[in-house]
Amino acid sequence: MRAAVMRSRKLVVADVPLPEPGPGEVLVKTLACGICGSDLHALKHAERFVEASRRAGSVFTMDLARDVVMGHEFCAEIVEHGPGTRRTLPVGARVCSRPTIIRADGPRAVGYSNDTPGGYAEYMRLTEALLLEVPNGLPTEQAALTEPMAVGLHAVAKARLEPDDAPLVIGCGPVGLAVIAALRLTGARPIVAADFSARRRDLAVELGADVVVDPARSTPWSSWREAAVWRDASRAPVLPPWIAGPPVRPAVVFECVGVPGVLDQLMAAAPRGSRIVVVGVCMEPDTIHPMLGISKELNLQFVLGYTPDEFAATLRHIADGKIPTTPLVTGKVGVEGVADAFEALASPTLHAKILVEPWRA
Amino acid sequence: MRAAVMRSRKLVVADVPLPEPGPGEVLVKTLACGICGSDLHALKHAERFVEASRRAGSVFTMDLARDVVMGHEFCAEIVEHGPGTRRTLPVGARVCSRPTIIRADGPRAVGYSNDTPGGYAEYMRLTEALLLEVPNGLPTEQAALTEPMAVGLHAVAKARLEPDDAPLVIGCGPVGLAVIAALRLTGARPIVAADFSARRRDLAVELGADVVVDPARSTPWSSWREAAVWRDASRAPVLPPWIAGPPVRPAVVFECVGVPGVLDQLMAAAPRGSRIVVVGVCMEPDTIHPMLGISKELNLQFVLGYTPDEFAATLRHIADGKIPTTPLVTGKVGVEGVADAFEALASPTLHAKILVEPWRA
Repeated sequence: MRAAVMRSRKLVVADVPLPEPGPGEVLVKTLACGICGSDLHALKHAERFVEASRRAGSVFTMDLARDVVMGHEFCAEIVEHGPGTRRTLPVGARVCSRPTIIRADGPRAVGYSNDTPGGYAEYMRLTEALLLEVPNGLPTEQAALTEPMAVGLHAVAKARLEPDDAPLVIGCGPVGLAVIAALRLTGARPIVAADFSARRRDLAVELGADVVVDPARSTPWSSWREAAVWRDASRAPVLPPWIAGPPVRPAVVFECVGVPGVLDQLMAAAPRGSRIVVVGVCMEPDTIHPMLGISKELNLQFVLGYTPDEFAATLRHIADGKIPTTPLVTGKVGVEGVADAFEALASPTLHAKILVEPWRA
Repeated sequence: MRAAVMRSRKLVVADVPLPEPGPGEVLVKTLACGICGSDLHALKHAERFVEASRRAGSVFTMDLARDVVMGHEFCAEIVEHGPGTRRTLPVGARVCSRPTIIRADGPRAVGYSNDTPGGYAEYMRLTEALLLEVPNGLPTEQAALTEPMAVGLHAVAKARLEPDDAPLVIGCGPVGLAVIAALRLTGARPIVAADFSARRRDLAVELGADVVVDPARSTPWSSWREAAVWRDASRAPVLPPWIAGPPVRPAVVFECVGVPGVLDQLMAAAPRGSRIVVVGVCMEPDTIHPMLGISKELNLQFVLGYTPDEFAATLRHIADGKIPTTPLVTGKVGVEGVADAFEALASPTLHAKILVEPWRA
C-alpha cells in the first residue's frame, strides 16, 4: 500500500506491506488523518523522541533503523474483519478509535511503532473493541478531529475547575484550540487566550475564546486580570490594604506551547496559588526556578491523552455540534503532500490542522 | 542588645539597637530560637536569596549592606507593651508567633529584614495580635519548634490526602521530620521515609515513620512499593495483564531536600499519577524533563509556610503530645555559638535542630 513513511529521518512516499489484522482486529481504510505537532517533533528530533519516550516508560517504542508510518488522528472505514472478531460493525462502517492496538502482551501505539502503521497510509489495523462508529451524517474530516479535541477535554477534566476559576490559555495551536473548545463546554468564563499568530487568535475566537491577546503587544496576564475580577464583590476574598488592585479569581493556566522556557515564564507571572496545566508536549529538558513555585504555592498538573470515556464523549460532542471543528481544517493533502505539509506546519502562522487523505487523487 | 548579626556576609556577635515596639506591638525577650536551613542558605548565598525572594515577590527584602538579625523559629517572653496594645497577655507571658510584623503599609518578615530583628538577638518586637500564649507547662524548647513543625502540617494539608494514598518522604532533615509528624496525625500509613544519614533515619522513626530507607543501599521506591500494596485486594484497580507486579496505591511524595536535581529524579522514578509535594526550598534554578511529568500525568504542588490556623494548631498538637518534638533538639548555643552552629548544620548528619538561647551564659 502507498504510505508516507519516516525512513532514515526523512518522510518519503513508498509502498509498504499491507497490515494483516490479527485476532480481534480489523483492517480499515484510512479516510482522513490529521498531522499532529508530535509527529513533527518525532521526525525532527527522532532520537530524542524515542529516548524521552523510553525514559518515560511510554508505549512509543520505535526502531529508527526501520520504517515508521505515523498518523494517530484518524477516521477510517472497515474493510475486513480479522479472526475472532465479533463483527458488531459491518464492512463499510466509518469508525474512529484511540490510536492503540491491544494485544495479549501489551498495547501498541498506532503511528509510533514499526509494526502498527498509522494514518499516513492507505490501510491500518485496529482493535475491534476500541472502534466507535461515526454518527450518521458527521463528515469524515470532523470525525478525524476526535483525537486532538479529546486532548482538550481531558486537560480541562484534569484541571478540576471550581466555579470561580478564571482560565487562561497560552498558545492557540491545535492543543490550545482543543482546550478552548473544552473550556466552553464548562461554565468557566470568560476564556482568555494568547497567541502570536493573528490567524490562530481568530480561530481561538471561533472555538469559543472570549478575549484574545497578542503577547507581542501586551502581556496575557493584564487581560487575564481584567477578566478575572470578581463580578460579585461580596464573594471576593478580603485582601489586606497593602495589596494593590482588585482581588482576582483563582488562575488556571493551560500551557499549550510545549517549548522550553514557557513554564518558567508562567511560574514567574502567575499569581499566588495558580494552577498550571501543562498540556503542551516539551520533549527537551527545561529549566525552572522552584523558588517561584514555592513562594507562590503553585500547582503544576502535567497531562497527556484522554480516557476511553473522554474520547467517546468528544466524538459525541463533535457530532452534536457542541465542539466546533469546521474552522480547524486549514489544508488537505494526499500521501505525496505529507512532507510539504510538515514543512508548512513548522511555521504555524497559516495552518491549524492539515488532514492527510491517503486516497486523494 | 547582644545579637548574632549577618554583617558583610559573615555571622558576628555584636551589640545592635534595642528594637522599639510600634503601635500594636510588644517588646519580647527571646527565650529560644531554632536555626533553619533557610538561614544557612541566606548566609551562604545571600545575593541569590535576596534575588530569588525579590523575583518571587516575597516579603524577604534585605539590604545586604546593612545588618540583618536572622531567626524566625522562636519562643519569647513579653517584656513591654507598645502604644495602642490591648494587653490581653501580661508581661512575663511566654508566647509564640508567626515571624511576621503587620504594619499598615504591609508585613515585615521577622528575621529576614534589616529593621525587624529575629530570634538570634536578646529582644524582638512582635505584633500583639499574632501572639499565641504557650500552654502552661510546655517547655520553651518545644514551643520554639512550633514554626518548623507547622511547615509539615501545612505541607500535608496541601497534599489533600485521600484515604488510599501511600506517602513517601524524601529527606529527613527538620522539614522531612515535620512532614512525618504531620502525616502521623492523619491516617496515611505506612509512612516510608528516606535519608542518607542514620541519625536522621532514627529520628524519622521517633517522629512516626514506619519504614526508613538508606538511599545509598536501596531505592526508596522499592520499599515504597512494598508498603503501598493494597491490603484489601478487592479495592485495588484491575491492571491489564502486561503490567508486572501487584497494583500499588497512589503515591504522594514529599520532596524535603531542596537540592537541584532531586525533583527530576523523583519525576523519573514516580509511578504514573503520582503527586509530588515540593516542601524543600531549592533556591537555585533546576532542570526537569517535562516529558516525564507529561507521560505519567504527575502533579507537582509547591508549598510554603502555613496558615495562621495551622500555626496555632501545631502549638496545640505539641502541647498535647501529638507531635513529638523532644528528640528534635540536638544542640543549644548562645549568640556566641551561632556561627559554629551554622557550620555544624552544614554537614547535617549529626544534628536535627540547634536552638539559640540568647540569654544562655
